[in-house]
Amino acid sequence: MIRIGIAGYGNLGKGVEAAVHNSPDMELAVIFTRRDPASVSPKTPGVRVASFDSIAEYADKVDVVVNCGGSATDLPVTTPKIAALFNVLDSFDTHAKIPQHFAKVDDAAKSGGHIAIISVGWDPGMFSLNRMYMNAILPNGSDYTFWGRGVSQGHSDAIRRIDGVVDARQYTVPVEEAVARVRAGENPTLTTREKHTRECYVVAEEGADKARIENEIKTMPNYFADYDTTVYFISMDELREKHMGIPHGGSVIRSGCTGWDLTTKHTIEYSLKLESNPEFTGSVLAAYARAAYRMRQNGESGCKTVFDVAPAQLMQESGEALRAHLL
Amino acid sequence: MIRIGIAGYGNLGKGVEAAVHNSPDMELAVIFTRRDPASVSPKTPGVRVASFDSIAEYADKVDVVVNCGGSATDLPVTTPKIAALFNVLDSFDTHAKIPQHFAKVDDAAKSGGHIAIISVGWDPGMFSLNRMYMNAILPNGSDYTFWGRGVSQGHSDAIRRIDGVVDARQYTVPVEEAVARVRAGENPTLTTREKHTRECYVVAEEGADKARIENEIKTMPNYFADYDTTVYFISMDELREKHMGIPHGGSVIRSGCTGWDLTTKHTIEYSLKLESNPEFTGSVLAAYARAAYRMRQNGESGCKTVFDVAPAQLMQESGEALRAHLL
Repeated sequence: MIRIGIAGYGNLGKGVEAAVHNSPDMELAVIFTRRDPASVSPKTPGVRVASFDSIAEYADKVDVVVNCGGSATDLPVTTPKIAALFNVLDSFDTHAKIPQHFAKVDDAAKSGGHIAIISVGWDPGMFSLNRMYMNAILPNGSDYTFWGRGVSQGHSDAIRRIDGVVDARQYTVPVEEAVARVRAGENPTLTTREKHTRECYVVAEEGADKARIENEIKTMPNYFADYDTTVYFISMDELREKHMGIPHGGSVIRSGCTGWDLTTKHTIEYSLKLESNPEFTGSVLAAYARAAYRMRQNGESGCKTVFDVAPAQLMQESGEALRAHLL
Repeated sequence: MIRIGIAGYGNLGKGVEAAVHNSPDMELAVIFTRRDPASVSPKTPGVRVASFDSIAEYADKVDVVVNCGGSATDLPVTTPKIAALFNVLDSFDTHAKIPQHFAKVDDAAKSGGHIAIISVGWDPGMFSLNRMYMNAILPNGSDYTFWGRGVSQGHSDAIRRIDGVVDARQYTVPVEEAVARVRAGENPTLTTREKHTRECYVVAEEGADKARIENEIKTMPNYFADYDTTVYFISMDELREKHMGIPHGGSVIRSGCTGWDLTTKHTIEYSLKLESNPEFTGSVLAAYARAAYRMRQNGESGCKTVFDVAPAQLMQESGEALRAHLL
């Protein structure tokens, strides 16, 4: 049994817990939290909840720690710290800062003789992996990533910070016409606005100036200004009834050419339809936790990404069984 | 430069040649053939064409041989033979015989200190790889593979062997309704007949009994009897005009559940639309030839499959560049 530790028990931590519960070769050994451990009620019967500050005491009780903190301020600090003590995974998703995060985690993991796998999930993660395979096998071409229809936590948070907003959900929606043109192999040049639209469901305070809120949303730089954005004001009841899920998904599509003169066309598409973003991400993390455990058993150490993990490492079955049944 | 040898200069060999031509880090060193070398006219200017029997003389002139023979009788003999002398790839596709082919090639590759990667292409190959990733990250679920719309060489050959048939093309066609049910996450149980239909375009000899030919096709065991098959008799001119391409493709779809009680649904789909099956397969083989070369440089040896190759090995770029741009 691979003994898993979870650091952080939010939506993602709960997703990892469920994935471990449904993996016959894994057991959840401990949950680390920054909150009062007595206030955390895990689903897993009898599992220990410990303070994050006591994590070093568990070095011989846990094989892999799945770090479920946030990318903005938590993971850059905690993943290197954990990597010095344990094999560790995270889902660090600030694309621009991956190189510096990698370097720090690599130093820590090597010093401790552990495996760390960063940026595991679906984007970065399975989408990155598919972009790479598509680029490798169709080197002459263009790829496109569409996200949604799904809830963007960051955009929902941005709306909530506006004065007069009680709660909000933002859906990122791919523009169907753009997706169809890419699928047809047209290789179009698409602006930000042509690829996605944004739908906002907003609960406003009583008496709030809705026109001002709508304008503040639609003109918000980086988040909404470059998109066609639609704002719907709804009641808290409607938000609770229709918008409590965390669905997401999207597609990576590459069209490219082969042949001596590059005149033969091909299209590759990888797509996800997810009812729960954190549960799916948790399930991807659990599979890569198995790989981290095995790579360490093979004597490897240091920081890795999904690019460095041979696919067979993700599976419980032996190479022989995999070749006989999945190849 | 990675020096590539191609064994067998049919459609697949030509596909590999084009992929090598379009890979800046590869050069085609030699084509091995069983025909009279003087009768072979490669596209690559100045490339040497040598008899397959003289292959051992090229041990220090070639880094990786891509073996483009057929799975039925050629690859089981030639891939082990080549593996003793060179790093080698093939696209062996007789699923049931992969374990025994692997064992033979593994012995030969280890004895020669080489890397062999077998069953590289799209099925087996990219489809197998995607089945594995999907199974790893959604262990509770079902997957489905649909092929087509595309030309099946084996089924076209089977029709050509019927008395009175001059030429024929067979298209494998996925049943749209079945694909839609799988995409919707219904997890249906589907018979062979419910998943694919078969369309046959047949040129008959003048005066041949078309009713008999049609009946022989439709009742042919293994190939057609279990499918809804449509037969169209056409002229040789129409066959030449409309059916000379070798398009193919298909989809691997897995729908599965996550969450503590496995009540949250997700669907993953990987799909290919290929204008030329051999050119695409050749392009996949070229990418894995790069991986074979690198794995050997890292000191590895023995037989591998796509399951054993870390994705970053397929790419020219360094790990650092890949993390910065593709993750």
